[in-house]
Amino acid sequence: MKTKKVAIVGASGYSGEVLVQLLLNHPHAELVAVTSRQNAGQTLAQVFPKFASHPKSKTLRFTEPDAPALAKLADVVFLALPHGVAAEYAVPLLAAGCTVIDLSADFRLKSAAVYQEFYAHAHPAPDLLSKSVYGLPEIYRDEIKRARLIASPGCYPTSILLPLIPLLKAGLVQPDGIIADSLSGVSGAGRKAELDYLFCECNESVRPYGVPKHRHLSEIEEQLSLAAGTNVTIQFTPHLIPVNRGILTTLYLAPTERVCDAAGAAQFAEKISAAYHSAYASEPFVRLLEGKALPDTKNVVGTNVCEIAWRIDPRTGRLIGMSAEDNLVKGASGQAVQSMNILCGFPETAGLV
Amino acid sequence: MKTKKVAIVGASGYSGEVLVQLLLNHPHAELVAVTSRQNAGQTLAQVFPKFASHPKSKTLRFTEPDAPALAKLADVVFLALPHGVAAEYAVPLLAAGCTVIDLSADFRLKSAAVYQEFYAHAHPAPDLLSKSVYGLPEIYRDEIKRARLIASPGCYPTSILLPLIPLLKAGLVQPDGIIADSLSGVSGAGRKAELDYLFCECNESVRPYGVPKHRHLSEIEEQLSLAAGTNVTIQFTPHLIPVNRGILTTLYLAPTERVCDAAGAAQFAEKISAAYHSAYASEPFVRLLEGKALPDTKNVVGTNVCEIAWRIDPRTGRLIGMSAEDNLVKGASGQAVQSMNILCGFPETAGLV
Amino acid sequence: MKTKKVAIVGASGYSGEVLVQLLLNHPHAELVAVTSRQNAGQTLAQVFPKFASHPKSKTLRFTEPDAPALAKLADVVFLALPHGVAAEYAVPLLAAGCTVIDLSADFRLKSAAVYQEFYAHAHPAPDLLSKSVYGLPEIYRDEIKRARLIASPGCYPTSILLPLIPLLKAGLVQPDGIIADSLSGVSGAGRKAELDYLFCECNESVRPYGVPKHRHLSEIEEQLSLAAGTNVTIQFTPHLIPVNRGILTTLYLAPTERVCDAAGAAQFAEKISAAYHSAYASEPFVRLLEGKALPDTKNVVGTNVCEIAWRIDPRTGRLIGMSAEDNLVKGASGQAVQSMNILCGFPETAGLV
Amino acid sequence: MKTKKVAIVGASGYSGEVLVQLLLNHPHAELVAVTSRQNAGQTLAQVFPKFASHPKSKTLRFTEPDAPALAKLADVVFLALPHGVAAEYAVPLLAAGCTVIDLSADFRLKSAAVYQEFYAHAHPAPDLLSKSVYGLPEIYRDEIKRARLIASPGCYPTSILLPLIPLLKAGLVQPDGIIADSLSGVSGAGRKAELDYLFCECNESVRPYGVPKHRHLSEIEEQLSLAAGTNVTIQFTPHLIPVNRGILTTLYLAPTERVCDAAGAAQFAEKISAAYHSAYASEPFVRLLEGKALPDTKNVVGTNVCEIAWRIDPRTGRLIGMSAEDNLVKGASGQAVQSMNILCGFPETAGLV
Repeated sequence: MKTKKVAIVGASGYSGEVLVQLLLNHPHAELVAVTSRQNAGQTLAQVFPKFASHPKSKTLRFTEPDAPALAKLADVVFLALPHGVAAEYAVPLLAAGCTVIDLSADFRLKSAAVYQEFYAHAHPAPDLLSKSVYGLPEIYRDEIKRARLIASPGCYPTSILLPLIPLLKAGLVQPDGIIADSLSGVSGAGRKAELDYLFCECNESVRPYGVPKHRHLSEIEEQLSLAAGTNVTIQFTPHLIPVNRGILTTLYLAPTERVCDAAGAAQFAEKISAAYHSAYASEPFVRLLEGKALPDTKNVVGTNVCEIAWRIDPRTGRLIGMSAEDNLVKGASGQAVQSMNILCGFPETAGLV
Repeated sequence: MKTKKVAIVGASGYSGEVLVQLLLNHPHAELVAVTSRQNAGQTLAQVFPKFASHPKSKTLRFTEPDAPALAKLADVVFLALPHGVAAEYAVPLLAAGCTVIDLSADFRLKSAAVYQEFYAHAHPAPDLLSKSVYGLPEIYRDEIKRARLIASPGCYPTSILLPLIPLLKAGLVQPDGIIADSLSGVSGAGRKAELDYLFCECNESVRPYGVPKHRHLSEIEEQLSLAAGTNVTIQFTPHLIPVNRGILTTLYLAPTERVCDAAGAAQFAEKISAAYHSAYASEPFVRLLEGKALPDTKNVVGTNVCEIAWRIDPRTGRLIGMSAEDNLVKGASGQAVQSMNILCGFPETAGLV
Repeated sequence: MKTKKVAIVGASGYSGEVLVQLLLNHPHAELVAVTSRQNAGQTLAQVFPKFASHPKSKTLRFTEPDAPALAKLADVVFLALPHGVAAEYAVPLLAAGCTVIDLSADFRLKSAAVYQEFYAHAHPAPDLLSKSVYGLPEIYRDEIKRARLIASPGCYPTSILLPLIPLLKAGLVQPDGIIADSLSGVSGAGRKAELDYLFCECNESVRPYGVPKHRHLSEIEEQLSLAAGTNVTIQFTPHLIPVNRGILTTLYLAPTERVCDAAGAAQFAEKISAAYHSAYASEPFVRLLEGKALPDTKNVVGTNVCEIAWRIDPRTGRLIGMSAEDNLVKGASGQAVQSMNILCGFPETAGLV
Repeated sequence: MKTKKVAIVGASGYSGEVLVQLLLNHPHAELVAVTSRQNAGQTLAQVFPKFASHPKSKTLRFTEPDAPALAKLADVVFLALPHGVAAEYAVPLLAAGCTVIDLSADFRLKSAAVYQEFYAHAHPAPDLLSKSVYGLPEIYRDEIKRARLIASPGCYPTSILLPLIPLLKAGLVQPDGIIADSLSGVSGAGRKAELDYLFCECNESVRPYGVPKHRHLSEIEEQLSLAAGTNVTIQFTPHLIPVNRGILTTLYLAPTERVCDAAGAAQFAEKISAAYHSAYASEPFVRLLEGKALPDTKNVVGTNVCEIAWRIDPRTGRLIGMSAEDNLVKGASGQAVQSMNILCGFPETAGLV
């Protein structure tokens, strides 16, 4: 299998760091460039001591980000940049023939107007919105195979979309009134020197934030609307939890059937189970929990797996969906590598197990 | 003001420990007895080194729990015992003339049948159910003044009832479809030697549990039904979070008015604000957050305060309520002392600020 | 007892926050001013939501630091400022007749030359060095009573000096070869927006820093030299530990007697015990641990207590000393208030228990 | 390369769990049996949800430990059992022709008398003591190649021996007066349901324990004595730190040369550097830190790497050595797999990078 040359623009943040880790050890990818303005000139080993045992860490140096130079070196370029900045690099890299896998929100939406509503500035490259593919492999595997611009999903969206889409597609839950309550580790805020994310401000603290209109709503609702075939508006509340990594999402859903008695609940349970198994039984990175097991972030941290469980509550007639993922792996860099594997024709799990 | 003699049965657990701390330093209470089977014979200082600087810690020794002996020593007895065990002590202590403040679930429900449904054994003293007062001072202050048996509320119930009851009483939210999503620190599980609560099992872990029917639902729904004047069934999902102390609850509520446009939302916001201010503006232990502030457990841990904030979401037409408390103080021992203050005629904040 | 008016310059950092907490609730002090450049204009409640239940929190506003204005308002001024900046305020405040309690390192040393060696700039007010009193009440209580400028000790120094000084004074340990290995919570680094102190950089991390020459060595060695009556040079290694608050220090000491056999060890143990009891038995804020107990930061956090324990190791002939304190209370703000109590003639424990 | 069949006795503890993880994914080992009394009958996926994505996790079931049955299935058997129990299995397994890699302390010492002194019971199989090889590959690689019984080192010993042995062998530090101050994550205490290791007892706590005579001293001193060619007695203080995994050790050492002036220090620094490079420059799992870098457990957790750094302190004339490792990987299971790789003729890093 032919090795691909890959580069990472913005490799010094938390998702950049996980990308470095995954790509340094990927059997079919050769990491040829990493960029970071503040670390330019330093080796990987200097910036990330934990990678110092890898031979390449002593020779590969961070450079200033420079699209034309990267286009000469790399076949595939990962962008781990802030929203709005990623597009500046995507345009020239695509023009120069590179495949681009963008971890920012810049190409996740189909509508430039919705982008402007949620990100508060005009979209920098609206023409590309129709060409990008939303990089959720379990849903868009075929499109990813043919893509040259991947918009890798956000961490919260992944944790919400994976448990919800099969149920909406199967018509098992109502598209109205969906609630997603999510708990995220602090790495989700990025490696930014801000008081709010200091150890002493996060440790022994649990708090909601961004209530009621978080930016990720835009891509969540766009994807849910596509799955449901109708406009979907959801309630989404993120909370900050003192763990480094992990997202736990609890979904409150209205079944399209009555589940308030034992017979109804049992019948509906079979349909939910069938929908999930049909969607995910052969997916390498979705784990449907069985028996009494419930998701726990500690069982997925460091892996590209999303755990899913669900319960019917006959007292309330509701369906409770629950998922757990590593926000930096399945919620960011692992999923991006999964997309790379698909579009490059590598085994989908290469470098991810 | 005449000092009351107080005793704690079951003083070696986490809520017992906080009771000891509060009562050792209470200006109008004299701690005369602490019981614990496993620590009988040891001084307070030996069992709780952190209290060793208090003069009484070197002389007050744990004893085996013995109701008649306690009744001779104490005016007020706190029971920090498991469900089902508390009633065994309450009966003889009440008969002997003591005032009893029970931190277990034994006397929180009015119905012995509901107790049996949720606690899986027959109620040990059903006659007392009609005599106990639910020790939520902000709601039952007058009844507490005259009570001789206080059923101090659970930690999750307190965090849910305080933000909800004023809204239900004012008819501002619908009693149907209420969702309470709660996040609790690990001390809520008690000081029990179980693998699930080991440091390495909880640290770097976030997980739901007890889905969908947690025992605390019984008292939550009974109290909400009383407030709403109709039967209330809610959805409640507890999660375990790696902090020692603190509960953060997020409530998803349906307003009884349309709030989907700016005018409707503004009008409704005034009503919510008025209901909360009417209920809590002069409460010493409820803090209504203003401006952009949202609850954070780190702002209430170690205090008897419950923080409350709310947001209207015009996109979904919902009201989001949020609360934060210390599960061991306002959610347990602090609230129990608050009840003691009320029924003994002490200033309500004595020993709590 | 006449109330003193007190002000805090630099009240928005971690030790400033604890000073606010202690002084808001102090029975004999009235907090009349708090300064902070970045928070000027905001109320205490806005900056510190946790204090919002205190009536004064809604009316007391942060101001720009202005020494003449403060001197008009306050009898006692606490300086919780960076090294080098504190002196700028101390000079005019002293000149205007205020008592100054400085929590920085600016007045802890007697020698301006040593200050320059360790702090890398000339001392800004060398004349005051001879007038300041090192605010370690267990050692300098009499001097503190008469002081107008208190140099409140650093957090590491307190944890090292309290267990060591009585042994050196009694000639029980050799002044040569002392090793202090200290573990500090992250609040010791201050509330600074730096990458090194982000949650994700500190959580699940244990690391030494500042090896081998930490700034606090200067005041530690000056104080130990005074106690020993000879020049003392020690080895000191600080480590950063993922807790909010707390310092644990382990001291490796050479007894001046042979303790390699049981008889020698027993005899020496009695002398150590006698020295500690003579020094600290009646100290309200030093707790000598007995029996098998060893210090644990969780038993002192939130209190002004320093726990001390020790063991003789007959295998090596060494004495091991161990201490635990809250770096923000006994290691900073609590100790500063203790000094205020002494110099103002208040009960020494006022506002601290 | 011929695959070896491997079994794990005692696979449900923390080091057992890491062994499972490493051996499930090892390119040359086939995990054929895992035992655990309390989990017998359950699959790997049921006991360890995090491994549920591995195909074998659904079929491999825990069994009761049974040496004859294991001997029929496996070529190599790992024992992850308590001290004293391991020997019961080692004897029959060796007799049946298996290679045994023991992670307990049972075969680490050469002297049954020292074993009895430190472990408080007679050695259960003293004849085997002369046949076992101490499984520290960086020191005993040749002996491991020919071994059939490996005594894999303890976690604290590994963190102390790796930085110390090259210096003692080179005669650069004095064998007298060595101090090792170690900080360990809570997983070092094992997966035991004890109050001391509950989340709320460890979180926000830092504490020494086992002072002054920890069991691991026996193997540390035996190995140091062999390296120094003389009897070595050291001072060792372990501390419990609220992280899941990781040991940080700080060593206080006396150089055999004067380093109190710049010239002496520089000369000695070259010798230390040379000794370490000679010992470890080509070791895949020892990382000598350069420049200003100091060890940090977060850079080694999840890896088989031990980081080492050192500083000369001309003020005190001492050498400070520092190391960091993952107590469950290089300090236990990873090192055991490293030994397996060596004795089976696999690449030493197989399954470990």
